[in-house]
Amino acid sequence: MTTYAAPPAQAGRPPYVRSRDDWFERVELITPAMCGPNSLFIGQLGDWTWDAVGASCGINPYTAADPEGNPVYLSFAYFRVRADSGLSAEELTFGDRLRVRSKVVSSGGDSLLTMHQVTRDGDQAARGPAPGVDGFFRYDTPGCIHVENFNRWIQRSGHDTNHGLRRATPANFRSDHLERVPDAHSPRRVWADARKASGFRTPAEPAPQAGLVLNYQVSASRDLNGVGLLYFASYFSIVDWAVLSLWRSLGRPARSFLGRRVLDRQLCFLANANADDVLDIEVTSHWDTAGTDVVDVTLRRQDGGLLAVSRQRIAHDPHA
Amino acid sequence: MTTYAAPPAQAGRPPYVRSRDDWFERVELITPAMCGPNSLFIGQLGDWTWDAVGASCGINPYTAADPEGNPVYLSFAYFRVRADSGLSAEELTFGDRLRVRSKVVSSGGDSLLTMHQVTRDGDQAARGPAPGVDGFFRYDTPGCIHVENFNRWIQRSGHDTNHGLRRATPANFRSDHLERVPDAHSPRRVWADARKASGFRTPAEPAPQAGLVLNYQVSASRDLNGVGLLYFASYFSIVDWAVLSLWRSLGRPARSFLGRRVLDRQLCFLANANADDVLDIEVTSHWDTAGTDVVDVTLRRQDGGLLAVSRQRIAHDPHA
Repeated sequence: MTTYAAPPAQAGRPPYVRSRDDWFERVELITPAMCGPNSLFIGQLGDWTWDAVGASCGINPYTAADPEGNPVYLSFAYFRVRADSGLSAEELTFGDRLRVRSKVVSSGGDSLLTMHQVTRDGDQAARGPAPGVDGFFRYDTPGCIHVENFNRWIQRSGHDTNHGLRRATPANFRSDHLERVPDAHSPRRVWADARKASGFRTPAEPAPQAGLVLNYQVSASRDLNGVGLLYFASYFSIVDWAVLSLWRSLGRPARSFLGRRVLDRQLCFLANANADDVLDIEVTSHWDTAGTDVVDVTLRRQDGGLLAVSRQRIAHDPHA
Repeated sequence: MTTYAAPPAQAGRPPYVRSRDDWFERVELITPAMCGPNSLFIGQLGDWTWDAVGASCGINPYTAADPEGNPVYLSFAYFRVRADSGLSAEELTFGDRLRVRSKVVSSGGDSLLTMHQVTRDGDQAARGPAPGVDGFFRYDTPGCIHVENFNRWIQRSGHDTNHGLRRATPANFRSDHLERVPDAHSPRRVWADARKASGFRTPAEPAPQAGLVLNYQVSASRDLNGVGLLYFASYFSIVDWAVLSLWRSLGRPARSFLGRRVLDRQLCFLANANADDVLDIEVTSHWDTAGTDVVDVTLRRQDGGLLAVSRQRIAHDPHA
């Protein structure tokens, strides 16, 4: 399947080892800038996706541009972090050594699906062979955080605004050499369904048992990234803030929030926002039959545009 | 001066090249998780300090513990980022390749001073020989961000609280082989003076021309690090939020805040805080003879304890 003899990593980024089935693998030491009850680990996952796309597609995603030289960004459209097989992002701490296996497949057109399996280095699961794509989607590798990122290339359509981003293709980008995601696992469907329904709720689910409406103003001092867009990891921070707000409204202490484990995080990105934009946020929650909280969060710009929808499944100790 | 044959970096961290005068050097590619109008780059600088201390002192700072096995953390006491010689943190973006030179010296007892020179890879300044300690403190290497970090080892004194942190020494830590910082450049004096004066203001300076009093509640969803302490980079985020609040009170738009360059950042860390602690923040500003804003920020816990004091010198376009 491989036609590129791309270097396994760029100067200044940690090197990969590439296996025969096109999984890229490396070890990462967890530092203070990579973990905690914040979105730093999520930010790392995003960088790892960009690294894996760079290695798989023979381009530099950090400097991608269209044929006219206008910047093109590898945007996150759907981001899932499943952590219910024995390792969660919340338990990662300084000095942990992780083995990260990453694979990029085509999901049609210029869009890409990147999968990461994150395990503790030395764990048995980290020593076994990498799964196929179908195997990944069983989410059953023990002690493994399963991450899927659906990415598309975008650029600004107007100067000095993050509204109205449009699709674009970087010069020299090719994905036709990549394995194609099986229809059953296409992130395109998940993304389209969540957009259509304005969330992940299905009609069969119980009605929300708690809810809250909030406002959040996008901050020029904390939320944007190095190209001035609302940073994809900030969406997770804003969602976590909404979840914490709901938590407090239910009389639960910060301690129990800090002790929670998020078994599944899903986030669909539908638009971007500018500094000072005020977001209307709706957060609702119900408890599933396993006793875990299922929390849905919807972010809208005040011009009515849907910014993002998210779902988290959260395990926590009600006595903490 | 060198008695350790420490490995130049640990598995999972980017490798260093060590020069004869004990500067450690490497190239870093700037990713989305490392830059922007937020504290991500500051967080990287902190990790680079921990890496440099690990390489210089032959221990693993990410897993340091006292002889009884209790965790010990390499805490930031004073953090300065000077960026007035042609490169600033605000201009860093995706794909920039930086050369980072780092040197660790003793500043008495178990405390350490780490210096970083950060330049664009390929710049002339990056090719020249590394400066001595006195040379570093001239801050005149062109196109260079000069960073100094004063660190001490600390641990919790009580279970489940970030108040009352105490000094501690990790097992197997030695610094007597390190060069010692000249008295003229001791960060200990800066730290002690700023603590005594509750800030960086001196009597000779003009009175503040603008000011604001604010409250900030430490957030369980965003501000803590992977060991549950208020993350050192979050202090910078809180200070930046206070600066932005002052900015808005002066009728300046977010656009001009995003276009500013911070020529000098100084922050003294005096205590830590818990999630939900409410901080009293005072921010004042005067304009110096060069037309730059000099902004002072003081953070206090509501129990009266001084948490941190900070100063920034900010250049901005008043017509932006």
